[in-house]
Amino acid sequence: MKDKFFFEKKILTVDKLFPEKSFKAKKKIVSVKTLKNADKDDLTFYDSKTYINHASSTKASYCITTSNLSKDLPSNIEKIIVKNVLYELAKTLKKIYPSADIDYPDLSLKKANKKLYKTVKFGNNVLIGKNVKLGIGTIIGSNTIIEHDVVIGKNCVIGSNTILKNSIIGDRVMIQDDCKIGQKGFGFIPNQNRNIKFPHIGRVYIHDDVEIASACTIDRGSIDDTVIGKNSYLDNQVHIAHNVKIGSNCMIAGQVGFAGSSSIGNNVSIGGQAGVSGHLKIGNNVKIAGGSGVVKDIDDNQTVMGYPAIPLKEFIKKRKK
Amino acid sequence: MKDKFFFEKKILTVDKLFPEKSFKAKKKIVSVKTLKNADKDDLTFYDSKTYINHASSTKASYCITTSNLSKDLPSNIEKIIVKNVLYELAKTLKKIYPSADIDYPDLSLKKANKKLYKTVKFGNNVLIGKNVKLGIGTIIGSNTIIEHDVVIGKNCVIGSNTILKNSIIGDRVMIQDDCKIGQKGFGFIPNQNRNIKFPHIGRVYIHDDVEIASACTIDRGSIDDTVIGKNSYLDNQVHIAHNVKIGSNCMIAGQVGFAGSSSIGNNVSIGGQAGVSGHLKIGNNVKIAGGSGVVKDIDDNQTVMGYPAIPLKEFIKKRKK
Amino acid sequence: MKDKFFFEKKILTVDKLFPEKSFKAKKKIVSVKTLKNADKDDLTFYDSKTYINHASSTKASYCITTSNLSKDLPSNIEKIIVKNVLYELAKTLKKIYPSADIDYPDLSLKKANKKLYKTVKFGNNVLIGKNVKLGIGTIIGSNTIIEHDVVIGKNCVIGSNTILKNSIIGDRVMIQDDCKIGQKGFGFIPNQNRNIKFPHIGRVYIHDDVEIASACTIDRGSIDDTVIGKNSYLDNQVHIAHNVKIGSNCMIAGQVGFAGSSSIGNNVSIGGQAGVSGHLKIGNNVKIAGGSGVVKDIDDNQTVMGYPAIPLKEFIKKRKK
Repeated sequence: MKDKFFFEKKILTVDKLFPEKSFKAKKKIVSVKTLKNADKDDLTFYDSKTYINHASSTKASYCITTSNLSKDLPSNIEKIIVKNVLYELAKTLKKIYPSADIDYPDLSLKKANKKLYKTVKFGNNVLIGKNVKLGIGTIIGSNTIIEHDVVIGKNCVIGSNTILKNSIIGDRVMIQDDCKIGQKGFGFIPNQNRNIKFPHIGRVYIHDDVEIASACTIDRGSIDDTVIGKNSYLDNQVHIAHNVKIGSNCMIAGQVGFAGSSSIGNNVSIGGQAGVSGHLKIGNNVKIAGGSGVVKDIDDNQTVMGYPAIPLKEFIKKRKK
Repeated sequence: MKDKFFFEKKILTVDKLFPEKSFKAKKKIVSVKTLKNADKDDLTFYDSKTYINHASSTKASYCITTSNLSKDLPSNIEKIIVKNVLYELAKTLKKIYPSADIDYPDLSLKKANKKLYKTVKFGNNVLIGKNVKLGIGTIIGSNTIIEHDVVIGKNCVIGSNTILKNSIIGDRVMIQDDCKIGQKGFGFIPNQNRNIKFPHIGRVYIHDDVEIASACTIDRGSIDDTVIGKNSYLDNQVHIAHNVKIGSNCMIAGQVGFAGSSSIGNNVSIGGQAGVSGHLKIGNNVKIAGGSGVVKDIDDNQTVMGYPAIPLKEFIKKRKK
Repeated sequence: MKDKFFFEKKILTVDKLFPEKSFKAKKKIVSVKTLKNADKDDLTFYDSKTYINHASSTKASYCITTSNLSKDLPSNIEKIIVKNVLYELAKTLKKIYPSADIDYPDLSLKKANKKLYKTVKFGNNVLIGKNVKLGIGTIIGSNTIIEHDVVIGKNCVIGSNTILKNSIIGDRVMIQDDCKIGQKGFGFIPNQNRNIKFPHIGRVYIHDDVEIASACTIDRGSIDDTVIGKNSYLDNQVHIAHNVKIGSNCMIAGQVGFAGSSSIGNNVSIGGQAGVSGHLKIGNNVKIAGGSGVVKDIDDNQTVMGYPAIPLKEFIKKRKK
């Protein structure tokens, strides 16, 4: 399951991808991964000091980076020095994964074949793509679309009018009506008159016993995955951007939004309409009051409120002034 | 209509439900209702001093409560003393209503039978469950799903891609595209690794002349109903949680959210993206500015703004400091 | 394309519309338009000093206005003096455009006829209305509904479960899953027990290279159009109310909401969950921080934050107190 991959991929050697650069070893690129997840023969990228620890220990063979940041990388990695890392990364991803930058609807969808999925119950007009795996006892509501290669575990209940793509879903997961899970995130390189769309080759990984209420949107990861941990519950109209990691046993109330790449600990509870900015680290057992706007990291066991969110005690003191 | 009920129900005597307790009268439980709505032979629950007035006058025969709160109840009611009222209530509901804790999609849906509903107009692929009642002159858009036992009045217009379940809808109600109405609310007993899902046996009750714009979510009540009063209008992407009561002639702008069990008076207007916390009482003729976060009760005729929302005059004074 | 019109229209002379008024010339009304867009033989309306510049130069033949405001209009225009301009306008629109006040679902929809659209690719159960125009190379996902007379340009990708009506869409536009575009906006004349629904005869105009993520709602204009400028990108769950104009090259993050009739410049970026009130003018190159609530006009090149939003420097200074 860990290696399940959803996108068309071209096998290219590194010198074909970067013809203007020179390399010691002109290997085929196996995949493009984050500093942390990359392995031998993978291409990675390093664009921010935030990830310096992962940079120094990455196992990738090739890394797109800037001249300045390149010093943090292992000596044996081949560095591809550029001015704008994300721009070069987007262009490179497009060459390797030519159809991951636009969400082309799956045209392989067919009405659910009950002979193929004998232990699954379907509503009307359920549309299933190629190679979809559905666990025993799972029920899928009417008009729901499950695109190619999606994996759903045992005893799940998927509501009606829901769309799942590029996703791996555990056991006993409940997804209510009209959720959109696995679509491309909001990532692009701004460019006057024609932005450059950032290919999204990640997935959505939903662990066992998760419950997702109606009308939520969960974008797939760009390079990494978007993850919802075991037994976490989401209320209606929650929006989860690309690469967000949510721990286990979290409670996320209605209309909460997460910007990209933030990671949320375990046992976190978030009140309605709160927002969490991008690239933050929220600890375990954190409580975020409804309507708060979180713009910086939060340590374990904190309760915060306000816009920008501050510890609850400070918030109350400030208001008394 | 008042007694329309949507869930499978088992007839059980109180001693079967609570074998470790002793009772004077071992009656069959007719229903589980709130303190206020319960009648003879009903089971109710009392878990918060907020409802002390209803507790002292309830007509229920049995009540789940704590040792401490039990003193507020009438002397003739049989008290079921527990430590965690909602936990015991959830377990009991699950025994009586075994399928109300998960939104199993209605597998009885069939394409709309025009012979059965001669005075109704349907788009393509409209799916209708068993025992659905549709009033004269009503129009229903394509791909819309109306699950079993739903009642819709006369001259309504229901848009496309909308899902209605566990709901009773008046006359001349307009519901635009892609609304989700009647699904389970966000209620569960937190429990490491496997939360306990709270059965939702309530309904959504929408009165005459209501208009609901696109992509709204309105959860059904848990024990009580969720209610939208006559001639109230909701804009796009509004979220209404379980048990919320909205009065008549209200105007609720886009992306407003209500947490559970709050009650809103008549002639209330709420600006875009405002949020109302749970278990609050908002009076008549109240105005809530866009973006506000309401965290306490509001008296009649008040105008409030801010996060937390305060009277408009105070808000302006504070900002001038 | 500029004259593409989506609603049934009755040809009526001005004296039939306002029998209690007297007119010099009893002409047929060609259309109802804004002060700025109206031409000879059109009816317009003037209800707020905000539009005084457009009032003095309008080319309309007839104008509904108040006694007080009527002085700002050209001397040769025939003035229809009333107490409540919007109320009279709503009643008049209803006479000329009898079906624009309710979103009746399009009952002319049929499964996409591949012979009619040979250069277009369709998923399953795509429903297309009469006179729909689809450009070469466009792809449309499953269960998507495109109502009568909609125009979509070349090489567009429209996701699944999306609904388009009353809209004109350029080339290379990407609209992801479950968007609702072109429905009626949130406009009505409040009236105890039975509000008066305001007919919406405008359209949604989406320019080339726009990208709209999942679950967005974009209401059509009331008298004017709603417009999204070239190469602007919207994230998930964005709500755009009637008559809003968004410039080109804008970036609008998840769950942002716009109230009606605001105009946004070019190169504007807006963070997640921000809200923009109605009838505002936001300049070019403006940056609005996530979670902000914008309640007044913003000049070009400003960065604002907070609720209500103020220039970033002021926001930081205030917080340090």
